Amino acid sequence: MEALLAEWEGVRAVDHHCHPLLRWPLDLTPFGLRAVFTEAADPTMIREHVPCTAAYRGALACLAGALGCAATEEAILEVRAGRDPGTYANALLERSGTGVLLLDHGFAGGDAFTVAEHHREVTLPQHEIVRLETLGEDLAAGVDDPQEWFQAVRAALQAAVEDGACAVKTIAAYRSGLRLRRHSPEDVAREFSLFRAAVPPRLTGKALCHTLVFEAAACCRVLDVPLQVHCGLGDPDEDLALASPLGLRPLFEDPGLRGLNVVLLHCYPYHREAAYLSAMYLGVFMDLSLAIPLAAADGARALKEALGLCPWSKLLYATDASRLPELYFVAATRQREALAAALSDLVTAGFLSRDEGVEAGRRVLAGNATALYRLQPR
Amino acid sequence: MEALLAEWEGVRAVDHHCHPLLRWPLDLTPFGLRAVFTEAADPTMIREHVPCTAAYRGALACLAGALGCAATEEAILEVRAGRDPGTYANALLERSGTGVLLLDHGFAGGDAFTVAEHHREVTLPQHEIVRLETLGEDLAAGVDDPQEWFQAVRAALQAAVEDGACAVKTIAAYRSGLRLRRHSPEDVAREFSLFRAAVPPRLTGKALCHTLVFEAAACCRVLDVPLQVHCGLGDPDEDLALASPLGLRPLFEDPGLRGLNVVLLHCYPYHREAAYLSAMYLGVFMDLSLAIPLAAADGARALKEALGLCPWSKLLYATDASRLPELYFVAATRQREALAAALSDLVTAGFLSRDEGVEAGRRVLAGNATALYRLQPR
Amino acid sequence: MEALLAEWEGVRAVDHHCHPLLRWPLDLTPFGLRAVFTEAADPTMIREHVPCTAAYRGALACLAGALGCAATEEAILEVRAGRDPGTYANALLERSGTGVLLLDHGFAGGDAFTVAEHHREVTLPQHEIVRLETLGEDLAAGVDDPQEWFQAVRAALQAAVEDGACAVKTIAAYRSGLRLRRHSPEDVAREFSLFRAAVPPRLTGKALCHTLVFEAAACCRVLDVPLQVHCGLGDPDEDLALASPLGLRPLFEDPGLRGLNVVLLHCYPYHREAAYLSAMYLGVFMDLSLAIPLAAADGARALKEALGLCPWSKLLYATDASRLPELYFVAATRQREALAAALSDLVTAGFLSRDEGVEAGRRVLAGNATALYRLQPR
Repeated sequence: MEALLAEWEGVRAVDHHCHPLLRWPLDLTPFGLRAVFTEAADPTMIREHVPCTAAYRGALACLAGALGCAATEEAILEVRAGRDPGTYANALLERSGTGVLLLDHGFAGGDAFTVAEHHREVTLPQHEIVRLETLGEDLAAGVDDPQEWFQAVRAALQAAVEDGACAVKTIAAYRSGLRLRRHSPEDVAREFSLFRAAVPPRLTGKALCHTLVFEAAACCRVLDVPLQVHCGLGDPDEDLALASPLGLRPLFEDPGLRGLNVVLLHCYPYHREAAYLSAMYLGVFMDLSLAIPLAAADGARALKEALGLCPWSKLLYATDASRLPELYFVAATRQREALAAALSDLVTAGFLSRDEGVEAGRRVLAGNATALYRLQPR
Repeated sequence: MEALLAEWEGVRAVDHHCHPLLRWPLDLTPFGLRAVFTEAADPTMIREHVPCTAAYRGALACLAGALGCAATEEAILEVRAGRDPGTYANALLERSGTGVLLLDHGFAGGDAFTVAEHHREVTLPQHEIVRLETLGEDLAAGVDDPQEWFQAVRAALQAAVEDGACAVKTIAAYRSGLRLRRHSPEDVAREFSLFRAAVPPRLTGKALCHTLVFEAAACCRVLDVPLQVHCGLGDPDEDLALASPLGLRPLFEDPGLRGLNVVLLHCYPYHREAAYLSAMYLGVFMDLSLAIPLAAADGARALKEALGLCPWSKLLYATDASRLPELYFVAATRQREALAAALSDLVTAGFLSRDEGVEAGRRVLAGNATALYRLQPR
Repeated sequence: MEALLAEWEGVRAVDHHCHPLLRWPLDLTPFGLRAVFTEAADPTMIREHVPCTAAYRGALACLAGALGCAATEEAILEVRAGRDPGTYANALLERSGTGVLLLDHGFAGGDAFTVAEHHREVTLPQHEIVRLETLGEDLAAGVDDPQEWFQAVRAALQAAVEDGACAVKTIAAYRSGLRLRRHSPEDVAREFSLFRAAVPPRLTGKALCHTLVFEAAACCRVLDVPLQVHCGLGDPDEDLALASPLGLRPLFEDPGLRGLNVVLLHCYPYHREAAYLSAMYLGVFMDLSLAIPLAAADGARALKEALGLCPWSKLLYATDASRLPELYFVAATRQREALAAALSDLVTAGFLSRDEGVEAGRRVLAGNATALYRLQPR
């Protein structure tokens, strides 16, 4: 494992899915640090239970190593408070080994950097990902019926891609679950009326959300950008029982969508299912992203399981980090370690030569995403 | 792993979910010993296939170590036959490291100790768990409609808790599956009529069972006792496809049930899902209990997987043992070993310091349950 | 692990589920070699992504070891091209340690050996497995209604078994999914009309496929041959979400089918569920077959997971290989290694003695299948 990590030292990874940082300066409390290492929103969960997770204890240890301080919240926050926030954040990002950020700004609240601010404050190169449901909600006010709305969405997606966006992302898992199917125009129209009537408009309903995904998929195919789909674990807004990527089969089997690239994000605990899909369908890719920092040793185990069926040419690197540079750093570090552990196991077991392991890792860290998102190789 | 086990030597564990012992003396045959190490009831399964499981072979080895005899059924049964049954049983329980038993007597047949007998014959401190469906069936004769019945159940739960019961347990997984939802009063009434007409009354039907669970949940919240929910593996009465804890989401999302504590029992093979719920919702706890003695090395692996997302402040220790002290001993021993293996892996991988690992184990063995069930610390 | 492999060196395994070889001589290209190590059919998947799998890299390494050449496609194909195809194929099969093949010829195209050719060209003893859906389609032309058709199927199954067939296999997972239930005669009749009208007839539809499985199950019970059921991973024709063996519960719970033996094939990623069923129901058996060569190290991990609940008296050895002797050899080799790794882990962890591990492996390799399919012991 150490040997592979050493080989990849110069590899600048493509973080193909993450979110913006919070605007600095900010006063970070222990509570604020804990809050980014969980998907739970309940304050008691954050205060009492997050410190009792391997993920958070390991994060403190990981940060302590990077900052040269004790593995305690106090020591880490003290180091942070003593530095210029921009210098501190950019140094952590730089040390994480990440070379490019593909950012979904659609999730951020008002305390996060805007796109322009993020480009100005964060020195790493960045590209934008369009968040489909946010876009759909933003466009609701100006249209009168579903067809007009879908047309507005298509036009906006095209404009965004022409403006440099490198992917479209859907969080249908949160809004309707992922058991995708085609719906009747009547059902779509009925749900659209409810959607338009709400203030502010919030997308829900299977007919509307699924149809929007199919529309976006067709659009992504024509625009030749990947469609990222949140699968598996997330916050409690989502019913995990409805978040398996196997429900996306209609996207993969539809002859009209041939050529579409779909990237399954997070996936845990459905990562073996995601790996199966990646092994079966040319246009399917996957990552473990969020599972790596949150599920600690089991995130690393999940990566080993995924590398059963999933070709390494289909596996991508992502942190799904947001808000604090500490999370970016920890997620990136754990991601590399997990990848090195998985590939070195395969080398030890005789499946791969060491050179093949090194090369496989380079592709996962950077090569696959560079090709898929048509980024310039650095 | 050995180091952690040594650190916990003095920790008296809280077995927060188990069942009563069979009344002694009894003549134990090899068949009888095999029968407690499986959920299968088929005699040929017990005779021919249970001996071909890692769980049973490992159980013999584990018992042989404790009894100082050969790892064969004959040797173990000979030792047992030569001792006073009460002394033998209490010695095995004592050696298991368990300090308190929380007992579900609702499952036992006539050959098991009654509550009073169990307190008299077994020296470990004990508390009772109310088995919801058994209670519901017992109360069916005296009522005329669902509302009266629910009221009787509520009154009986309150009386049981005032009388010292420390939890309520539902086996809805066996009766209706766990894809919980609210049902119409008409559906409840129709199923109630069938239920009342049967002799003896046996609870089945989604409308009736689910509604009973919601009633009990509301009651547990007010009485401030946890609701234990059987999830995942059990005997063939259950359809495992319907036993995922993800189906319990309505219990966690209902604002009227805020403050309710729900304990997911067994969980395997849905333990990653259970860990996810434990990491998301303040009131969700989990154990692996039955999976540890029955799934052998994979039970231990499941515990490692669960400690991915599940905070150790949410993980509980239980044997789910019943009938024979041999099962209590083996289940308790394997549980500690599995916990030590999982936590020492996290120490080795750098997620936890050794002290954190020791402390995490203490909480799982005793601290979490002592707080959750409001037991006196020993 | 090495120690167990050495102990089993003389054990001729029963490959209880595989498919015929391609007729030789044939010109094998790198593309042709890659194509057998995936379930994907897309040529770009085979060209670009199969070489980026641990399964395929490991297969090259495995073949290189056996052939005494470099672990490259070129070297392997060169060795192959220089040998007599029959001698080469039979030598690889012989070296694989397999002693008997149970063959499903129903899947093969025109380029595979017929039953008679296979017996003539391949020196290993062979028995046939009847592929239910192929049989049903072949019999469609001669009948006028479902009852006649079911009767023809029953008669043909009986004739096949009298003629030496040792099992019946269903691929209902591909045609209707495995959430089995009983259907009304009207639904069966309606689907039968569509089925009969199609040219060539192709079985689809839940009512028709499920009813055919129940009919075949009843027939297998009377004829005393096992019913093999494809579960879990396969090619993209199948919706993996509908391929869990838990859906087969009606086969296990029906009192009229008591005594039926059902063998769950492949199972991954539902192998823990399959192991649960094997541990609960006397008539349920399982294998990992296809998962072992395709999921590489995770196939081996899946076998460890399955040996949690599954008695080793219920676990079977199979390659699910087809077309090329290279696949037979690699799948057989990996199967033995995975079995040795799983059992030696159990020995190391103290669940089994070494002798028990050796004996367990013998049963999985040959003993269980010999008894289940009533083969003559060699």
